[in-house]
Amino acid sequence: MPYEPITPIAWRDGQVEMIDQTRLPGELVIIRPRTVEEMWDAIKKLKVRGAPAIGIAAALGLYLAIKDSRAGDRAEFEAELKQAAAYLASSRPTAVNIFWALKRVQQAVAAATTDDVSALKELVLKEALAIRDEDEAMCQAIGKNGAPLLQDAEAVLTHCNAGTLATARYGTALAPIYYLASRGKVLKVFADETRPLLQGARLTAWELHQAGIPVTLITDNMAAAVMARGWVQAVIVGADRITANGDVANKIGTYGVAILAREHGIPFYVAAPASTFDLSLSSGDQIPIEERDPAEVSHFGLRPTAPEGINIFNPAFDVTPHRYVTAIITERGIIRPPYKQNIARII
Amino acid sequence: MPYEPITPIAWRDGQVEMIDQTRLPGELVIIRPRTVEEMWDAIKKLKVRGAPAIGIAAALGLYLAIKDSRAGDRAEFEAELKQAAAYLASSRPTAVNIFWALKRVQQAVAAATTDDVSALKELVLKEALAIRDEDEAMCQAIGKNGAPLLQDAEAVLTHCNAGTLATARYGTALAPIYYLASRGKVLKVFADETRPLLQGARLTAWELHQAGIPVTLITDNMAAAVMARGWVQAVIVGADRITANGDVANKIGTYGVAILAREHGIPFYVAAPASTFDLSLSSGDQIPIEERDPAEVSHFGLRPTAPEGINIFNPAFDVTPHRYVTAIITERGIIRPPYKQNIARII
Repeated sequence: MPYEPITPIAWRDGQVEMIDQTRLPGELVIIRPRTVEEMWDAIKKLKVRGAPAIGIAAALGLYLAIKDSRAGDRAEFEAELKQAAAYLASSRPTAVNIFWALKRVQQAVAAATTDDVSALKELVLKEALAIRDEDEAMCQAIGKNGAPLLQDAEAVLTHCNAGTLATARYGTALAPIYYLASRGKVLKVFADETRPLLQGARLTAWELHQAGIPVTLITDNMAAAVMARGWVQAVIVGADRITANGDVANKIGTYGVAILAREHGIPFYVAAPASTFDLSLSSGDQIPIEERDPAEVSHFGLRPTAPEGINIFNPAFDVTPHRYVTAIITERGIIRPPYKQNIARII
Repeated sequence: MPYEPITPIAWRDGQVEMIDQTRLPGELVIIRPRTVEEMWDAIKKLKVRGAPAIGIAAALGLYLAIKDSRAGDRAEFEAELKQAAAYLASSRPTAVNIFWALKRVQQAVAAATTDDVSALKELVLKEALAIRDEDEAMCQAIGKNGAPLLQDAEAVLTHCNAGTLATARYGTALAPIYYLASRGKVLKVFADETRPLLQGARLTAWELHQAGIPVTLITDNMAAAVMARGWVQAVIVGADRITANGDVANKIGTYGVAILAREHGIPFYVAAPASTFDLSLSSGDQIPIEERDPAEVSHFGLRPTAPEGINIFNPAFDVTPHRYVTAIITERGIIRPPYKQNIARII
């Protein structure tokens, strides 16, 4: 089917199939982890990345861990499951989606009415696949809900990768683009390369090109020049966390793009599932900003590109105040200002 | 002397000494071109770069070409000079500063009252060194004129490299920073890495660190986050061309930084010599924007970082409309709005 995005993680013929994202954009390599150790390794080494995708990977990893279990009873089985979950969680200890997915599978087992170990094994797989299917459905809903906002645009600009590669399928920011493309409205996409880790160049440009959607790669500092030329009619990005007042934490650089969009009179849309909202925080000031390894900025791969001994600032995220956000697209519908009231109503 | 910037190109003990800028920031390698061919090669391979610096290099290259001339008379000498100039100009055919410097040396010879070939040789060297000395004096004047604008700042942000490495010494955008530092007011500098060619990481961070000025390197998309934190009180950049109304063509990304500065209430200064003004153009719309090799964006060094087959937009420059420019710092003084009138008065 034309314009159909690739599926980054699937369960097929009794095996997990995943795209090794560390090999992109050079090669499309499919890996098939057969053991929990292989899945742990794949998560650890970022062969799979993106919060929803690694949750799915962890849940499927749990099934790999227990599918050949010789547990004699339910208690022994649940103990094995708990041990495997703790092991998988250690692959990326700060990834909340892994914890959430592992907990959900364990809770499904705990709530089961059967004591039959074979039936419990099937339940683990069923729950893992449900997580996957629900994520895909949620992304599709975001795509459908966001489509009307973009349908009159000729081209849009995006930052980082909030696409199919980060989710079960379709992505969040890119979901409306795939949705429209499958219905004959093919947008052009400008992809910021997204320094320092180049998710835009390596992943967004790859997945859109793979799906047949025309993509133009730019360095982050070219976004203003693209907007000044009138080449994009909307910006759409994902989100890592959204506070109760509509402030948006997302990949470093998002805030700057939001300012540029407003300056050029271009709407700035954020696409994210309801689970992204953290209503315990009243505003973006309360979001802690992780600083990452300075070597990501001072080196390219292993090659130094800056002198030794200088200072480096390498925040992973920035916060876009809600006043720059035209609308937030969720699986439950579109949220517009005033955000405080409308987020409270919908989320 | 503390905070003194390095001299990228000098005439010392009868030889040209230049920093091989292609080896920065890893190694400080001094090269000594002894022939016009070696100078041609150094210019061609970007061992020396920056409009003023390559003009000086070309003029000194002209001296290398004729210093051992056996020309029997003035006519023969001037013919040799003309041939050498044409050869040197072919090293970087679009660099107007090379043409300007070569022409200036030839005109000085043409205007000479002596027919003595030895005296004419000395005149070539003298004129080349005059070009160098005048550039240094001009940069110093920009530094002195710009200093009052920055003296109350704690830190400033700059984009690309408009520093000592691009000029005879001191640079343009960085000149006020060196000027203040030598007088005990040491500013902190945030340097945008400046994709795709990383002049900020490779050159600006290097030369400031070498001079003992504290520099923090960021990726281009972190500038907004730095401004939001209140960490910089001014932005200062160089210029490639300034039109009669004050619009500024400069390295790609400058326009975006100017918008971000205004959004955060931070003054945005442009530092450039009078020769940068092109009064034949009434506004920035008339400036042609060179597009460079897409491989600069899709590759890092020789390593591909983006998929094959996608579109790439790689403009070398952008245009910052004058309404974003707080002031233009020249060797003749500071120009403020209204630019059309004030540029006409000063330039």
